[in-house]
Amino acid sequence: MMGRTGAAKASKSGLDEVGGAEVGARSAAHRRLSINQATIKYASLEDALRVTAAAGVQSIGLWRESVAEVGLSEAVARVSDSGLRVSSLCRGGFFTAVEGAARRASIDENRRAIDETATLAAAGADGSAAVLVLVAGGLPAGSTDLPGARQRVRDAVAELEPEARASGVTLALEPLHPMYAADRAVLSTLGQALDVAAEFPAESVGVVVDTFHVWWDPQVIEQIARAGAEGRIASFQVCDWVTPLPQDVLLARGMMGDGHIDFGPLSRAVTAAGYIGDIEVEIFNQAIWDADPAAVVARTVRAFAESVTL
Amino acid sequence: MMGRTGAAKASKSGLDEVGGAEVGARSAAHRRLSINQATIKYASLEDALRVTAAAGVQSIGLWRESVAEVGLSEAVARVSDSGLRVSSLCRGGFFTAVEGAARRASIDENRRAIDETATLAAAGADGSAAVLVLVAGGLPAGSTDLPGARQRVRDAVAELEPEARASGVTLALEPLHPMYAADRAVLSTLGQALDVAAEFPAESVGVVVDTFHVWWDPQVIEQIARAGAEGRIASFQVCDWVTPLPQDVLLARGMMGDGHIDFGPLSRAVTAAGYIGDIEVEIFNQAIWDADPAAVVARTVRAFAESVTL
Repeated sequence: MMGRTGAAKASKSGLDEVGGAEVGARSAAHRRLSINQATIKYASLEDALRVTAAAGVQSIGLWRESVAEVGLSEAVARVSDSGLRVSSLCRGGFFTAVEGAARRASIDENRRAIDETATLAAAGADGSAAVLVLVAGGLPAGSTDLPGARQRVRDAVAELEPEARASGVTLALEPLHPMYAADRAVLSTLGQALDVAAEFPAESVGVVVDTFHVWWDPQVIEQIARAGAEGRIASFQVCDWVTPLPQDVLLARGMMGDGHIDFGPLSRAVTAAGYIGDIEVEIFNQAIWDADPAAVVARTVRAFAESVTL
Repeated sequence: MMGRTGAAKASKSGLDEVGGAEVGARSAAHRRLSINQATIKYASLEDALRVTAAAGVQSIGLWRESVAEVGLSEAVARVSDSGLRVSSLCRGGFFTAVEGAARRASIDENRRAIDETATLAAAGADGSAAVLVLVAGGLPAGSTDLPGARQRVRDAVAELEPEARASGVTLALEPLHPMYAADRAVLSTLGQALDVAAEFPAESVGVVVDTFHVWWDPQVIEQIARAGAEGRIASFQVCDWVTPLPQDVLLARGMMGDGHIDFGPLSRAVTAAGYIGDIEVEIFNQAIWDADPAAVVARTVRAFAESVTL
């Protein structure tokens, strides 16, 4: 993978930007920073790879929509040329529908996502992670059967897990903040996601720890420790909780340091739990999307160094 | 209390409105319905008491602001004349400030609220509950110290509990939905509220079970059972979770049946836990506030009968 040397060079220049004396202390964290594409949503795959590498960041979290725009084989070539690691593919899931055509379509779509995850992670630099992030999905229209929807999430994971295992992919169940429980994700806490994962092998089913979704949870520190002990932390994502919430609460995320989350205890808990993988910054925020992607990545590098201590 | 006979008459007429054959089955629940004043926020205390009693509802949850408008002694007279039970007083709390003048002012305000709770409950019809609903408060401005804020909630309860006990008042800790954790309530789950309550006597410190705040919690059924076993359910409030969330998420509540909550399992769990008190409908919703209070109460009576089975 020819790109790796280039990435190492770019990384050095990125560290210089972070600033003088603190480079040493920060570099361990910096080397693990990954820009999730959602943070620079309007950049094409090509631009996202370019601005990420140019800022000295070594890893990127990809989105399927962006890959689909150029096609998988072209995406593979560009990822390989970039020298970046791939930290995850976002995303699969949305499998709370009752049995029928819609559910079958969802399962098939997740099978394609598993294949893409394996292919893209193989194209990334050494240390890439074949991790497919899964968002559970909300209650079907008109339904109030929350336990039923949760059961169907478990059933979908059971159906997909053999294929994930055969492909060397980890299905990463992402508990979303409880404000999305009705319309987006019936998995709401880390403990709950771990309960679903528990009946499957840890290589093929893990969880995502995303600060935005779990920071409020009185049990978060103990559940992060449990996730580590069970070998389930497949991805660690960071961004801040800002108030007031915007009209579209999907866009409520903020840059680290702009909100109410204390990242130190959460990142230290994830480190203590044994997680050594990349750390993605994933921010859905209209003002950040509207800014120049290179400037956003530069800002992310600084905010990450200031907020996320390991 | 002269009003009680009147209330019983009004109740019968209210039941007739609910409709024919189902009156018998529904009446047990209906007798426990309480209109929380927040549902008809723009009605004065006098109007709120009048439309509530006129609809055959036997109980009301009061708000301090509304009581303050007429003064406590006038409020006592009107409550007594109404024949209604008082199911709770909303609200105290907001005691996450660090030690200093603001914290002292908050503690003093809560002492006044305890006195008002005892006085108003004594003025209500038999079966009134001297319950003061407490909202914890959010993170102090600029602070990200969530554990510290939570500790200060516990400390405030410790400081207020002797006075509550002496006054025969139950401090009811209300866990709020996690989307309010930063700016409104650092108590986010029923389990967490019960953990705070655990070191105090059950007569003086309990919890509020509010469907809007807890419906998403994977542990809600077991925590309701625990709350019952520990004698801590001081109040049961119902309203629905509607999507999309409005711009001001404080106004995200909906009438039962308009949203995503399955009230049956939650109300049955509260009943199985031994709670026999009034059940408040508390809805913060601009469209409902803008409607005629009598029409809102009539609609609440119908929705309650249709959704809340015991």
